[in-house]
Amino acid sequence: MRINIIGIGNVGSHLSRALQEAGHEVTEVRARSASSGEGAPDGSSKGVLSEADLCIISVKDAFLEETARRFIPLCPNALWVHTAGTMDIDVLSGKGASAIGVFYPMQTFSKEREVNFRDIAIFLECPDEACRAMLERLARSLTEKVYWLSSTQRRHLHVAAVFGCNFVNHCYALCEDVLKGIGLPFDVMLPLIDETARKVHQLSPRQAQTGPAVRGDDNVRTAQWQLLAGNPLRQTIYDLMSESIQRTHKEAGQETAH
Amino acid sequence: MRINIIGIGNVGSHLSRALQEAGHEVTEVRARSASSGEGAPDGSSKGVLSEADLCIISVKDAFLEETARRFIPLCPNALWVHTAGTMDIDVLSGKGASAIGVFYPMQTFSKEREVNFRDIAIFLECPDEACRAMLERLARSLTEKVYWLSSTQRRHLHVAAVFGCNFVNHCYALCEDVLKGIGLPFDVMLPLIDETARKVHQLSPRQAQTGPAVRGDDNVRTAQWQLLAGNPLRQTIYDLMSESIQRTHKEAGQETAH
Repeated sequence: MRINIIGIGNVGSHLSRALQEAGHEVTEVRARSASSGEGAPDGSSKGVLSEADLCIISVKDAFLEETARRFIPLCPNALWVHTAGTMDIDVLSGKGASAIGVFYPMQTFSKEREVNFRDIAIFLECPDEACRAMLERLARSLTEKVYWLSSTQRRHLHVAAVFGCNFVNHCYALCEDVLKGIGLPFDVMLPLIDETARKVHQLSPRQAQTGPAVRGDDNVRTAQWQLLAGNPLRQTIYDLMSESIQRTHKEAGQETAH
Repeated sequence: MRINIIGIGNVGSHLSRALQEAGHEVTEVRARSASSGEGAPDGSSKGVLSEADLCIISVKDAFLEETARRFIPLCPNALWVHTAGTMDIDVLSGKGASAIGVFYPMQTFSKEREVNFRDIAIFLECPDEACRAMLERLARSLTEKVYWLSSTQRRHLHVAAVFGCNFVNHCYALCEDVLKGIGLPFDVMLPLIDETARKVHQLSPRQAQTGPAVRGDDNVRTAQWQLLAGNPLRQTIYDLMSESIQRTHKEAGQETAH
């Protein structure tokens, strides 16, 4: 398949590499936005865009509409998709594309990390029947985990990913800060972090919950809250997470592991 | 070494198995507390406790002092230690033991999961010089990751573990709830969860942070916050975690992966 990728940030660059490895012909196009203060769109947007079956826009959500407006007219006969979890498919509509869709690979992409697309779930949306087959073929050339979702469902999925990935990682960051305070390297926590992730392959997160909050150990909760004095935001986070753990388990009325 | 383990909950039972596999002679002792409403201590506390070099108390923090008071006089010549992250070593003092200490294996223990102690860091405390060597030998018979910490340091360590494990797992639970709402199984999130944990083996959590908050994508933040309407506690958690991510990255003034 001939593919233009507009936007070569973390998602775009990993996706480009994976698609090329899967045998597709990929043209990478920078998509700097004038309004981002990072300079005007480069040469390829001034009337030149390679012929392609599919064009993938992979830019910051805030620049998605502007990028679509500028680039779609340069290759209107292609199927145009974006890679954003939270953006509606409609952000691409009314800009002259013959067909539009969404191609959302759910993963945490960093420049420093290789990512194996076989491990990634890809979530698709495409109202055009003919293009659906093409989009699914493309996704399946990268991974077996392919799902069709509406824009509304995908918005919820993205919230789930923020909890399951972004907030998890921030918990790691808060953990690292506390360890620094007692002169311990973050590495001491890695076995615990790994086991916490491995556990939920076997148990549901509710079953896997351990710690003072789920045990109802209010003495420890109070003592730990006090240790975070000096950082009211972290104290509040500690409180609310503990509260939410207890409420979740009360609602579930389940036996939990302690 | 001859060891009595008083309390055979999640920590005690896993520890007992590991110590036996390492060749130690272990006697397991139930330690039900009268004040817990779970019945009085059983037979072994009525004046009978095997002779031992070491006695390990592994009960809920709230019952630690009571358990120590009842059981220490039954075997006063042993070194007595507890396994609690947040409890001071002094909870064991003044109860007649010839020596006291702490033996805190930092892991999330559930009955359903085998745990490899080789992967676990053990944190020790013991003011008695002669017993320090014995305690370190014991810990090293289970794992190479052995650290000496004061009670104060260990209290902070336990807060770090709550962030790095308990709160992380609760983020998984919140994630699962959101997925349920759109009819998706928790499994779709596992590749992302695994990669999130793997990343911090290579990058610091700050470098590894991705998502709307660290990107400063306030449109997405607002939209996702609105999707959580109907659950004010989760909305507040969403807000505070996002705020904390942004503040952490402003303080660090670091380049972050997006």
